[in-house]
Amino acid sequence: MNLHEEWMRLALRLAETGRGQTAPNPMVGAVVVKEGRLLGFGAHLRAGTPHAEVHALNMAGPEAKGATLYVTLEPCNHYGRTPPCTERIIVEGVRRVVVGMADPEPLVSGKGIERLRQAGIEVITGVLEDEARKLNEAYVHHRLHGRPFVTMKTAATLDGKIATRTGDSRWVTGEEARRYVHRLRREHDAVMVAIGTVLADRPRLTVRLPEGGRNPLRVVVDSRLRIPLDTPVTDVSEAPTWVFCTEQGDRDKERRLRERGVEVIVAGEGPRVDLRAVFDILGKRGILSVLAEGGSELNASLLEGRWVQKAVAFIAPKWVGGCDSPSAVGGVGAEKMADSIALRDVSVERFGEDVCITGYPVYPEDRGSETCSLES
Amino acid sequence: MNLHEEWMRLALRLAETGRGQTAPNPMVGAVVVKEGRLLGFGAHLRAGTPHAEVHALNMAGPEAKGATLYVTLEPCNHYGRTPPCTERIIVEGVRRVVVGMADPEPLVSGKGIERLRQAGIEVITGVLEDEARKLNEAYVHHRLHGRPFVTMKTAATLDGKIATRTGDSRWVTGEEARRYVHRLRREHDAVMVAIGTVLADRPRLTVRLPEGGRNPLRVVVDSRLRIPLDTPVTDVSEAPTWVFCTEQGDRDKERRLRERGVEVIVAGEGPRVDLRAVFDILGKRGILSVLAEGGSELNASLLEGRWVQKAVAFIAPKWVGGCDSPSAVGGVGAEKMADSIALRDVSVERFGEDVCITGYPVYPEDRGSETCSLES
Amino acid sequence: MNLHEEWMRLALRLAETGRGQTAPNPMVGAVVVKEGRLLGFGAHLRAGTPHAEVHALNMAGPEAKGATLYVTLEPCNHYGRTPPCTERIIVEGVRRVVVGMADPEPLVSGKGIERLRQAGIEVITGVLEDEARKLNEAYVHHRLHGRPFVTMKTAATLDGKIATRTGDSRWVTGEEARRYVHRLRREHDAVMVAIGTVLADRPRLTVRLPEGGRNPLRVVVDSRLRIPLDTPVTDVSEAPTWVFCTEQGDRDKERRLRERGVEVIVAGEGPRVDLRAVFDILGKRGILSVLAEGGSELNASLLEGRWVQKAVAFIAPKWVGGCDSPSAVGGVGAEKMADSIALRDVSVERFGEDVCITGYPVYPEDRGSETCSLES
Amino acid sequence: MNLHEEWMRLALRLAETGRGQTAPNPMVGAVVVKEGRLLGFGAHLRAGTPHAEVHALNMAGPEAKGATLYVTLEPCNHYGRTPPCTERIIVEGVRRVVVGMADPEPLVSGKGIERLRQAGIEVITGVLEDEARKLNEAYVHHRLHGRPFVTMKTAATLDGKIATRTGDSRWVTGEEARRYVHRLRREHDAVMVAIGTVLADRPRLTVRLPEGGRNPLRVVVDSRLRIPLDTPVTDVSEAPTWVFCTEQGDRDKERRLRERGVEVIVAGEGPRVDLRAVFDILGKRGILSVLAEGGSELNASLLEGRWVQKAVAFIAPKWVGGCDSPSAVGGVGAEKMADSIALRDVSVERFGEDVCITGYPVYPEDRGSETCSLES
Ligand SMILES: [Zn+2]
Ligand SMILES: [Zn+2]
Ligand SMILES: [Zn+2]
Ligand SMILES: [Zn+2]
Repeated sequence: MNLHEEWMRLALRLAETGRGQTAPNPMVGAVVVKEGRLLGFGAHLRAGTPHAEVHALNMAGPEAKGATLYVTLEPCNHYGRTPPCTERIIVEGVRRVVVGMADPEPLVSGKGIERLRQAGIEVITGVLEDEARKLNEAYVHHRLHGRPFVTMKTAATLDGKIATRTGDSRWVTGEEARRYVHRLRREHDAVMVAIGTVLADRPRLTVRLPEGGRNPLRVVVDSRLRIPLDTPVTDVSEAPTWVFCTEQGDRDKERRLRERGVEVIVAGEGPRVDLRAVFDILGKRGILSVLAEGGSELNASLLEGRWVQKAVAFIAPKWVGGCDSPSAVGGVGAEKMADSIALRDVSVERFGEDVCITGYPVYPEDRGSETCSLES
Repeated sequence: MNLHEEWMRLALRLAETGRGQTAPNPMVGAVVVKEGRLLGFGAHLRAGTPHAEVHALNMAGPEAKGATLYVTLEPCNHYGRTPPCTERIIVEGVRRVVVGMADPEPLVSGKGIERLRQAGIEVITGVLEDEARKLNEAYVHHRLHGRPFVTMKTAATLDGKIATRTGDSRWVTGEEARRYVHRLRREHDAVMVAIGTVLADRPRLTVRLPEGGRNPLRVVVDSRLRIPLDTPVTDVSEAPTWVFCTEQGDRDKERRLRERGVEVIVAGEGPRVDLRAVFDILGKRGILSVLAEGGSELNASLLEGRWVQKAVAFIAPKWVGGCDSPSAVGGVGAEKMADSIALRDVSVERFGEDVCITGYPVYPEDRGSETCSLES
Repeated sequence: MNLHEEWMRLALRLAETGRGQTAPNPMVGAVVVKEGRLLGFGAHLRAGTPHAEVHALNMAGPEAKGATLYVTLEPCNHYGRTPPCTERIIVEGVRRVVVGMADPEPLVSGKGIERLRQAGIEVITGVLEDEARKLNEAYVHHRLHGRPFVTMKTAATLDGKIATRTGDSRWVTGEEARRYVHRLRREHDAVMVAIGTVLADRPRLTVRLPEGGRNPLRVVVDSRLRIPLDTPVTDVSEAPTWVFCTEQGDRDKERRLRERGVEVIVAGEGPRVDLRAVFDILGKRGILSVLAEGGSELNASLLEGRWVQKAVAFIAPKWVGGCDSPSAVGGVGAEKMADSIALRDVSVERFGEDVCITGYPVYPEDRGSETCSLES
Repeated sequence: MNLHEEWMRLALRLAETGRGQTAPNPMVGAVVVKEGRLLGFGAHLRAGTPHAEVHALNMAGPEAKGATLYVTLEPCNHYGRTPPCTERIIVEGVRRVVVGMADPEPLVSGKGIERLRQAGIEVITGVLEDEARKLNEAYVHHRLHGRPFVTMKTAATLDGKIATRTGDSRWVTGEEARRYVHRLRREHDAVMVAIGTVLADRPRLTVRLPEGGRNPLRVVVDSRLRIPLDTPVTDVSEAPTWVFCTEQGDRDKERRLRERGVEVIVAGEGPRVDLRAVFDILGKRGILSVLAEGGSELNASLLEGRWVQKAVAFIAPKWVGGCDSPSAVGGVGAEKMADSIALRDVSVERFGEDVCITGYPVYPEDRGSETCSLES
């Protein structure tokens, strides 16, 4: 193991503890070490609270003088809700800073490192960088594209069905897979469904786990504002709900939804909600990650628009059959098998009887190119 | 390990070497042992050639006197193409016979064991019986039901598609999965497709592997005899082809197919081929195992008729999409998710990027009952 | 997973980061959680610095009010170098405290929990208690017996030899095993050798790893003060060295060692150092854990006195041979094989070509009894 | 997988079934295949019975014409107890022969292949050759050196002891390890001990397993014929016993041993048995493999003479201690650690609580050279 990897690995594990609760900020972990001895550590846990470096330096106290600071992401160099971490690092007399990855934001990337070097601090970069980028894949995507990182979750049978011809979908997968979906919700800033799912299944879209967990924002794509006033997602006591519609949505319905606390947002002028507008708005409002739990048509629209960055596909070992039962992805579909959207970096896991296949979509023209490199 | 399991395991491994080439006979392995020393072994490799016991006793020679014979299936006690093995065992002076499982054929089950005991030979039964039954699951099914054991193979995307909306299906899965399908063909007595697949894909349905392998019988379900005369499966130089049609099939076409060496068989009087008739005929002709490589509609018919005993479902990690692209199973489909056909004893394997899910269908009313027990 | 285990597991992992640097204090980790959201975490990293609970509550800030605190060890309730953690927990308005294990110190065990309950805080105990006890096995032993937990490390060949007949021992094991020994040193408060090893090998007994690490105290058992003044362990610039001798040690040598900064301690009146006295003194001085890296005779004395709590035995796959080459354990030895000292909870790991066998000695009369339970 | 490896692997597995019962012949397996269909198989199971090729061709019958024969060892081309296999292969009309490894015997190596080629048969060599050589490592060694392949088995504690200072050795290892030793005995032609072990432990040296197994020849090294007449190994009803002594052995004792059926063989003129003479005699008498289960001194002599080709070292996780308790290897021993005898190709397995380390000794000057290549 490289000289610095052991400590950076600890910093990465600490950063991970903030998963699902730091948006719009990234997960960051920090560790202070001197003469092989751990002096302090920290993680960023929530926007508005101190950064990882600050917690770690607080814990280390005056011993931080002359120490090495390991931090998974380049320290900030600008005044935000908190003063810049670079100044605090300099003031504490830290001798060396080891950085996992530079800030992905093009305008500030490298500025923090530069500031530290100007102050005479040795800076080493790129230690476990791949792991650091993977940890914050949603944050990096958001900073580069201004829109959230979308994970499309599907749960289908061996023949790709997400419900029977009568619309019955309880349950495709077993309990263990469903529990994992609740853990996924807890780790995302928002979950997204289309109105069809709201009407058919009356979901709550909350996290129901023995160990608890923060509920994500609920996003409903509902072009004509067909959402009933008494469906569970309009009860905002558990979590906020944003409904995206077009200008054709009924103004009266809109008013009554707002009275209930539901936010109604117009996205697009045409007959259907413009997903680009939806993701632009979500991105602007600091939503880094979206778990799309849609039906056939939302999934098709997401894939056709190339909005999906990651896929989590459960396969239940059963057959539903039926030409009219809905498949996981509807729409028009590919013309040639070679035009299908394949996954790369595929991993396979079992949850009870079900199989979960995870990967990153490669859109036909993209093959071979990287999606999220800073250079693009 | 039980006293006899070590040797029975060897007999089972030997039996396995005959897979795909013994029909209509079962796979059987035999081992002769005396004082902890292996004296001979054998397997049944092809109908019309000696049984496993005979090969093993031949190999042992006169040393077989006083030895123990391990055999995976009860020795035969009737005159067939070969004299009964029980007589040979008695003549050789074998002291003890250890049997994996009794003959599944109700009329003869236990007769061989009885004969041996009458001759004063010690007989021990049921050693590794589960393994013995699993080895010959096709044979056991055939003997109990008179019809072949059907394994339905599907290769679909994450959204259950087996082709695009234009019918393009080259290729759903990658090379490793396709090579495994060729190995499956080699292990089955017959492969079955419907006319739609013949028309769309012009398949050969042969075994194309570097290590070679016997081609299975090719069965085409073609109600109205639409099969072209120049499609690859009508070339019977590689393997025989049987086309099942209804009485409505064109007599002239039938004649010309026969001239090419293709067998044409009428199964059913209605507008569509009667699958029960097909499987009855196949069973009568000694076909123990069928690999169904159908499209949406054949798969739907097979599942609706409960003709499928085993499923091998490949899932390729890609999305095709499209409401009009064919799914792995068409037909009418289940009304409720609880009525879907689930698999039991599921195993999951990877072939390159693809996932292969194998199991045994549990038809809705069957849940909890055993399909192939001798008692039923 | 139980409701609280997920968070306690995080607390245990945090506690683990302090390994090797907290003596005479235990390793402790703490986590603050509210509504499924992580608010703060901490670990105790060094005597004299804040306890884990304090770091975690500092990180959580005012949000700690109404939260649940997970802590691997019962919070302290007495004024030491720091004020009692129980008071801080009460002041912060924590609603519930989940405890891994009670304080092992008989006089204070349960007092902290009682104090919290009196203050109206819900306390849940025994969550992942086995893991918590294993984490602090050295601390628990020290608190119960007043002496350090001794891990005896040996590195021998397949024939048990630690050197050749000429005393050559460079190297028994390969580089990977030796690197692991350096990691073990880093995790122990002290390493112990006998004068024979000092004379034969001139060891430094320091931690030499790319990733660095604190050097342990070096303890030399040297009855007659034969230690040379110019051997590496007398250079205390890297780490302190304590030499234990008898009253028969040369006073002049003692004076000159002290001038070099080496501490000389008399332990026993007889011709040989009294190990009980040595461990009593080490225990009183706050040494929780000792890594014994002795030769044949020290190992024999340690086992005969039942001073060893844990064994780490490397076996190098080679033969040295020789009736006069030293074995890993000398002394008189067992009379009957049934009187040998067996290990329980054995685990086996490979380091390069070498094998490492770890376990806990079961002294002949002890079989079946627990060594470190609070009840004893 | 290479075109031919699948079938050769079957042939190797068949050959393996003869382990422990073919001496002085090698283990050989054979398979007959035509058009991807298995027609016959066989193995050589005992000297004096047909060779593997003959069994496989018998099983195939007239179908062998035009087939491919896979055989793990080059077919014999000389008249021994059976006619040459090459002639039988030619007579049967086999089209192609695939060979695992050439005959290791320098005088005949390649002759069988040559004969087949002269007869117009295609011969492919070297398929899975490494596996074929490993299978017959004892046979190959014997053919090259004229002496048996010696596997030295030891069972020692963590401190290398094979008994306590009082000689008690029951039991060093647990039941699972001891059962594995019985399986090793079954696989070797002979077991070897020195008189010390016979006197101390009164061993039977037979195979005592639920599944039975042939007893090996028992070899006792007993320079002065001290063996008692009533010790178990002198009862030859279970297995033959050969006692090697010097010319100084008592003639009267020798006579009485012979009366009991024990063979007494003089090996060497000096005061101690000459191991070279012992192994030369064993080799001449067709003993291919010896399992040495000696004590300290026999082990030391075997290693010093470089007679050991393989080591199976059990380590029991316990300490015996004691300067006077015997170690696994006695003798003079290495002078420098670098002169110790290391193992290569080390594998580690657990048997219950015990660890088993297996490997091939590399004698100091040998490092880097191959022991058993045909070229040497
Ligand atoms: Zn910052
Ligand atoms: Zn038969
Ligand atoms: Zn405290
Ligand atoms: Zn031969």
